[in-house]
Amino acid sequence: MKFRIIYTGDIKTKFIKKGIDQYKKWNERFFNIDYVCLPLTKNLGKISDKDYKQKDFQNYKKYLSNSTNIILDERGKLIDSVDFSNKIENFKTYNRKDINFIIGGPLGHSEDIYKYSDFTLSLSTMTFTHEMAVLLISEQIYRANKILNNEKYHY
Amino acid sequence: MKFRIIYTGDIKTKFIKKGIDQYKKWNERFFNIDYVCLPLTKNLGKISDKDYKQKDFQNYKKYLSNSTNIILDERGKLIDSVDFSNKIENFKTYNRKDINFIIGGPLGHSEDIYKYSDFTLSLSTMTFTHEMAVLLISEQIYRANKILNNEKYHY
Repeated sequence: MKFRIIYTGDIKTKFIKKGIDQYKKWNERFFNIDYVCLPLTKNLGKISDKDYKQKDFQNYKKYLSNSTNIILDERGKLIDSVDFSNKIENFKTYNRKDINFIIGGPLGHSEDIYKYSDFTLSLSTMTFTHEMAVLLISEQIYRANKILNNEKYHY
Repeated sequence: MKFRIIYTGDIKTKFIKKGIDQYKKWNERFFNIDYVCLPLTKNLGKISDKDYKQKDFQNYKKYLSNSTNIILDERGKLIDSVDFSNKIENFKTYNRKDINFIIGGPLGHSEDIYKYSDFTLSLSTMTFTHEMAVLLISEQIYRANKILNNEKYHY
């Protein structure tokens, strides 16, 4: 059982790469965590948005079956860090499957992905780059692990 | 007229420092932006929370008069990035003062600070370190500048 952070398109910004590496290392004290980078779908703006998101979805699809899927989406539920840690604990205890955190492509998620969703999470009402979303969810997973292990976290 | 990001306690995490430097540089295409690091108040846990926050407040106080003050607070208002950019534009146009973004100390803000608040903003219902908050608000200011200048922003 492990955590998986799935996103589309390389992370190019250096400081974000460094931050993700740091949280990956810290999180692995608690749990295995894989970063899965899916290829960017071609023809953005040349095919319909629906078709584009459908092509994106085909890339995500192979990771969705037999996992707990947390879909990150601006329209998702806003919860606090303690609720988030409890949710993870429940998924670990009762689902006993790998936990995916799924960040959408340039146009967001295809509607098809929600059939596989165990929880739809919003990190913020504000928009961030997909790179920043990968960094933020990494930090929140680390925070959750600290909370669940009753460890102190610097403010 | 300039932007000011005011926070308490040094930013020690290297990748966050780098990210803030990057956004500072990018933001300065649009606007002057200063980062004001206030000293960490001593005796955390040894004096009452109220007294601690009151001491913190004394450090913030000298920046509050004659500025537009946006207080960052988990209990603040959740808005999207476009609303955020409109808010900044309005403050620039009608208040014509420096705009402070004020991030709290280890125990959060003293109640006294809200007397000076023009807007109380929540970046997320989730808790982040104060370092991450400085990074996130820097990114949102940059995004707002891009939105207001009709420039494309990578997703």
